[in-house]
Amino acid sequence: MNPVNVGLLGLGTVGGGTFNVLNRNAAEITRRAGRGIRITHAAAREFDAAGLPGIEAINVSDDAFAVVDNPDIDIIVELIGGYEPARELVLKAIANGKHVVTANKALIALHGNEIFSAAQDKGVMVAFEAAVAGGIPIIKALREGLSANKIHWLTGIINGTGNFILTEMRDKGRDFDDVLREAQALGYAEADPTFDVEGIDAAHKLTILASIAFGIPLQFDKVYTEGISRITREDVAYAEAFGYRIKHLGYTRRTDKGIEMRVHPTLIPERRLIANVDGVMNAVLVNADAVGATLYYGAGAGAEPTASAVVADIIDLVRTLTADPENRVPHLAFQPNAIADIPVIAMEEVETAYYLRMQVTDKPGVMASVASILGDAGISIEAILQKEPAPGAEQASIILLTHVVQERQMNTAIRQIEALDTIHGDIMRIRLEHLDCD
Amino acid sequence: MNPVNVGLLGLGTVGGGTFNVLNRNAAEITRRAGRGIRITHAAAREFDAAGLPGIEAINVSDDAFAVVDNPDIDIIVELIGGYEPARELVLKAIANGKHVVTANKALIALHGNEIFSAAQDKGVMVAFEAAVAGGIPIIKALREGLSANKIHWLTGIINGTGNFILTEMRDKGRDFDDVLREAQALGYAEADPTFDVEGIDAAHKLTILASIAFGIPLQFDKVYTEGISRITREDVAYAEAFGYRIKHLGYTRRTDKGIEMRVHPTLIPERRLIANVDGVMNAVLVNADAVGATLYYGAGAGAEPTASAVVADIIDLVRTLTADPENRVPHLAFQPNAIADIPVIAMEEVETAYYLRMQVTDKPGVMASVASILGDAGISIEAILQKEPAPGAEQASIILLTHVVQERQMNTAIRQIEALDTIHGDIMRIRLEHLDCD
Repeated sequence: MNPVNVGLLGLGTVGGGTFNVLNRNAAEITRRAGRGIRITHAAAREFDAAGLPGIEAINVSDDAFAVVDNPDIDIIVELIGGYEPARELVLKAIANGKHVVTANKALIALHGNEIFSAAQDKGVMVAFEAAVAGGIPIIKALREGLSANKIHWLTGIINGTGNFILTEMRDKGRDFDDVLREAQALGYAEADPTFDVEGIDAAHKLTILASIAFGIPLQFDKVYTEGISRITREDVAYAEAFGYRIKHLGYTRRTDKGIEMRVHPTLIPERRLIANVDGVMNAVLVNADAVGATLYYGAGAGAEPTASAVVADIIDLVRTLTADPENRVPHLAFQPNAIADIPVIAMEEVETAYYLRMQVTDKPGVMASVASILGDAGISIEAILQKEPAPGAEQASIILLTHVVQERQMNTAIRQIEALDTIHGDIMRIRLEHLDCD
Repeated sequence: MNPVNVGLLGLGTVGGGTFNVLNRNAAEITRRAGRGIRITHAAAREFDAAGLPGIEAINVSDDAFAVVDNPDIDIIVELIGGYEPARELVLKAIANGKHVVTANKALIALHGNEIFSAAQDKGVMVAFEAAVAGGIPIIKALREGLSANKIHWLTGIINGTGNFILTEMRDKGRDFDDVLREAQALGYAEADPTFDVEGIDAAHKLTILASIAFGIPLQFDKVYTEGISRITREDVAYAEAFGYRIKHLGYTRRTDKGIEMRVHPTLIPERRLIANVDGVMNAVLVNADAVGATLYYGAGAGAEPTASAVVADIIDLVRTLTADPENRVPHLAFQPNAIADIPVIAMEEVETAYYLRMQVTDKPGVMASVASILGDAGISIEAILQKEPAPGAEQASIILLTHVVQERQMNTAIRQIEALDTIHGDIMRIRLEHLDCD
């Protein structure tokens, strides 16, 4: 059988990794796919030829649209990133009847509905395993491996930069800003770290996971998103004193009222396997009705881990090339006509437990007034830690863990507590999930 | 599109779970598969109708061959277990042109080559996700998710009974026999626990994983297999003192000389995520060239976790029904004509590190003579613990960790040490792997 011709858009980190993995493992891949896979054309403005042995054998230009329009190419691999021209290139490739592989989480999260609909109309596939959690085959696990299940909820450490920062803060008692600077020096964080540390990157990925888990349209704008930049090393240490770790989680759950989609720092019990996923590593924990808890762990970024997912998608497409479009795995796990418009729940309606930390005047009766506001709001306290003022200081700290309550009630209670004249500054609030799978 | 008709062989634990999951999640499954899936016939000698709501609507007989021969059935699901008549039924189903799903690890490990060859000839698929690690989609992850990679090695906690026993021995300082009796009472272990505690069940699963990882034929008879019944609570405690956990691992690795396949108790560093997989849970850690380390965790047994994998396989087959047989995922991950006869390495040639525990006469010079034998054999010592005799006793214990050495050299050294008149009884030897993924 003739080899399949691939056109590669982008020769940066992931594009270069994809080129190298396909070349280095060509024999292994052909043994699996039953057919050769060769990159014949690539589009890149600039690239590092020294790091790409064999690049001279293929046709590299700076015209991505020419690659997308080339009739000899069967599969387009989009590794440029960003919204435009990636969106236009992918839609053009689809219009030209080509299958597409992409690692572009922002593109899928925001424009996936439009892209999948166009692909459906043309009978082509758009594969995007690399868009979530890098080399971990989580899209495949959810979409195919767990297809017998009703998914209850899933949660993931799906941004390596954020997990590296929180791990360093815990292991070494360091401050957020200090670790962020190191992460930037190590190349784990961008010069503008907003996408990573404010949770936008994780929200892109959570959007995709929620769609696949529950069979709902992609709805990035409905994800509640909160970053880790406010977390202090004291919060990390207090959480640990209670037997918890603070992780930056993407979390989505199906309830009777609809779907929760949220990205925020979260206390989780330290004995959970996912609490022990450290450094830049990613993991996704899925709780489903038949299988119970399953967890998927691996590198969430980097040239070759991401390329591993890109190339697996190419191999899947190669197997699909002669298959009946009606019998492929659907883009969002569920058949297009079975995508359901289950409502997404506003953050105020979400129910979760909480960690609260507040600075208080060190005098009798303060704890009683805080406890009384919480009690009146129907919020029960699971644990309390009162930290005496440092020598010479006048303010003590109160740290509380609560049972599960609706976010709206907690917002009201926090406003009331903050209004007390014995409370200083804002209350630090971090959500807490026990992640029970029973 | 018409629903797909499934014939179910066996209505025991997994058969009942499969029936219930397919019924309960019928709407969810149809949304994913694009087609209804209905069990029309089942074969079982006896079954618990009370635990199978809806069973009265299907045709249940005790004649499994009649189900396999029924021309209205598209897919046969074999959940009887054991070698015969499972083998004959599966081959008959294939001969009748039906696709097959099985959870039967013993059948695949011993007769998979014959079965897959017959399936290949008839253009049908035999799916067996449930045969390894229950509900964890590890076959799919290895065969499809990591298809871009050259696999270096993989290791798994793939027997829940053994992991439960080792976890209890560690957590509560209990003896093997004591925990085994509890596991039997809880239903985690069979009345005859040989398959689980002597590693045979794990060896079946490792046989399958090694084939898929490396593209080699199934060769159960070449797996080195050692159980956990000799492990004492002292070994568990000493391992912990050195910073290790003892886990019963299946381990397979590709070396320049061939493939290692082995199941044995193993010390692994306690900071590894897989060292923290406790109780009856399973996990598989894969180290591959592009993606690095990935880990897959979940329930390795039980009615619905196993059914989760069985039903996922049925859904995959439903999608495959109209697809070109040349473009399916190959049974053993690699195309049948690309299966390579890489030699399997004899255990004597394997290279690994070791934990050694010996009883010695408590007098000067004993350690020196042990160290001298090891030194002469080119075996370097990584750590030593000498445990003084209990009050009134005359024998001390020496516990050693060594660096990596060939098993043959270690066998020779152990024979020489055991021949010393200051050494009492046999030396306890447990292999040790660091599981570095860099």
